[in-house]
Amino acid sequence: MEAVKATAEGVKAVNAKKVKAFGTEAATAPLNQLNIQRRKPTPHDVEIEILYCGVCHSDLHTARNEWHSTTYPCVPGHEIVGKVVSVGNHVTKFKAGDLAAVGCMVDSCRQCDYCKEGLEQYCEEGNTGTYNSPDKHLGTQTYGGYSESIVVDEAFVLRVPENLDLAATAPLLCAGITTYSPLKHWNVGPGKKVGVVGIGGLGHMAVKLAKAMGAEVIVFTTSPSKVEDAKRLGADDVVLSKDEEQMNRYAGKLHFVLDAVSAQHDINAYLNLLRVDGSLALVGAPEHPLPVAAFSLIPYRRSFAGSMIGGIAETQEMLDFCGKHNIVSDIEMINIQQINEAYERLLKGDVKYRFVIDMASLKNKHAEQAKNN
Amino acid sequence: MEAVKATAEGVKAVNAKKVKAFGTEAATAPLNQLNIQRRKPTPHDVEIEILYCGVCHSDLHTARNEWHSTTYPCVPGHEIVGKVVSVGNHVTKFKAGDLAAVGCMVDSCRQCDYCKEGLEQYCEEGNTGTYNSPDKHLGTQTYGGYSESIVVDEAFVLRVPENLDLAATAPLLCAGITTYSPLKHWNVGPGKKVGVVGIGGLGHMAVKLAKAMGAEVIVFTTSPSKVEDAKRLGADDVVLSKDEEQMNRYAGKLHFVLDAVSAQHDINAYLNLLRVDGSLALVGAPEHPLPVAAFSLIPYRRSFAGSMIGGIAETQEMLDFCGKHNIVSDIEMINIQQINEAYERLLKGDVKYRFVIDMASLKNKHAEQAKNN
Repeated sequence: MEAVKATAEGVKAVNAKKVKAFGTEAATAPLNQLNIQRRKPTPHDVEIEILYCGVCHSDLHTARNEWHSTTYPCVPGHEIVGKVVSVGNHVTKFKAGDLAAVGCMVDSCRQCDYCKEGLEQYCEEGNTGTYNSPDKHLGTQTYGGYSESIVVDEAFVLRVPENLDLAATAPLLCAGITTYSPLKHWNVGPGKKVGVVGIGGLGHMAVKLAKAMGAEVIVFTTSPSKVEDAKRLGADDVVLSKDEEQMNRYAGKLHFVLDAVSAQHDINAYLNLLRVDGSLALVGAPEHPLPVAAFSLIPYRRSFAGSMIGGIAETQEMLDFCGKHNIVSDIEMINIQQINEAYERLLKGDVKYRFVIDMASLKNKHAEQAKNN
Repeated sequence: MEAVKATAEGVKAVNAKKVKAFGTEAATAPLNQLNIQRRKPTPHDVEIEILYCGVCHSDLHTARNEWHSTTYPCVPGHEIVGKVVSVGNHVTKFKAGDLAAVGCMVDSCRQCDYCKEGLEQYCEEGNTGTYNSPDKHLGTQTYGGYSESIVVDEAFVLRVPENLDLAATAPLLCAGITTYSPLKHWNVGPGKKVGVVGIGGLGHMAVKLAKAMGAEVIVFTTSPSKVEDAKRLGADDVVLSKDEEQMNRYAGKLHFVLDAVSAQHDINAYLNLLRVDGSLALVGAPEHPLPVAAFSLIPYRRSFAGSMIGGIAETQEMLDFCGKHNIVSDIEMINIQQINEAYERLLKGDVKYRFVIDMASLKNKHAEQAKNN
């Protein structure tokens, strides 16, 4: 509501500049080039030239208003990596020329118990999403990473390990932390048997991360075609979830299951794989409620949980962990002009395993247009 | 299957004696008096004269084969208190004349990791239930507390605090431990806000126990008639769950919710009361799966869990806690001959809050019959 009101009143009178972006004006319209305002860096801000931006399923949900909360125009993108262009005069963590990254949040209240504990994602007042949240500075909604540049308070800017492929690092900012955080929270490590359900943008990261944490990783998939690839990613075993006999081999055997499936599926089949005190954490968000049988939980004191991205300090920890273990996402690079086609392919699961936009293509287009004018 | 087979082969040739009991021969038959065999105490056994036995909803489910696993004849009852009559020559914890209690289990494998951790209720081979489990000694099914006496390995016999009303202590053996165990497991104590959903046999114990543990206790009920009684039991606040405004006051505020409702109900309404990292533990067992929305779990990293009774050491801890805090169940005493009527009232929720059978009535009946013969 606040965002809508602010938009109606127009952009607040602050120092701002126009930058190129790619977004949409309506749920049913394709994404195309448009201009947005970015504030000039205030003393604590970092201005980042965006080099690569990952494509998350949430981008599509939001662009198409599938969660019924989108304010237009909408510029998605929250898997952002780039180079620092300028910094405010109180900024201490970054200087021009540094690599930098921004994930799903650009601010939070910073006052509540959750923020103080480093759980900004669960901020009591609601965190400020990188896109489609009320922008405290400009009065509009926030605009995401499908754009030339972004200005973010340094408290919400991450450092990027220098040794990683930069484009393939972008998806770590959402897919990486969304899986790293629950794996850490539920103590995945050596001696633990961990199930990963669904091999896509999130699931393939979960396999790499859980393996690097020292766990035994079992992948559950409906697709025989993904068996070999799951092993390549590091899975110790791969189970075809439609095969009851294969499933039974792990009944009551797993310490933790990370469920990255957004489609409807039988959650009881996976709860039954858990040992006593085991947890299954949902990170995908199926549209309809999932029926849970009392007897899937009670006899083994099991938990069916959910988890959402991760805090800022934990996101930095994840990036450092990935740097140390040389972990990045498997990606397919696209130009920004291919985004609508990429969304269609995303809906079909036709990507291994994350689209990343080469944001240079937005400038090229601009250059091309300028030349044609 | 094993139990059925054993029954078909008849009682194993061991030293056994006939004792009076109350049970049923079929799902649709009322309970009536019958004879069962009890083994003569082996070196580690304790023979207990049963003085009182609580009436649990599981008794009714099992007597009527509602869980489709009942072997007949069925003698229910797993909230047993009584007096030790004799002990085997290796028994160290009990002597004749001691008070003693037996809960939901009379044995387990004692070898698996769970048993070794004191989680016999989750024994990998399945614990031996006090009734309707394969009886390792006699080859029949086990028979419960609706009987004159029971013989149990001392490892599964509990000590009863001398200061408590003995009849009102009986329900602690199931209703007490079923609520105490999750309250302890999820760290209920001072500074914690705890919700209790449903005020019946389990819920009323949860209120007393959580309050004694030092928590702030909020009761959720659909019945305006239970508000005053919930406060009498110790609730700091009582919320009518059908009143959305009252519910909203606790949205995101509770550390833990114990859900003791066995009927279908909207679990999402209660999950939404939990703080970040809060858990809701189900101890009632609704017949049909409960639909759980992903967004009830993900945004606050909440857990929907289940819990089943408690281990033997923990059951003793609970009894000692109740002795220290002078906690017993609110009961209505009945004679064994009233059990069928009590089951009908149980189905209507017409008991505050637990029926307890005065087992002297079984002897009296016997005496009466003898006199008539």
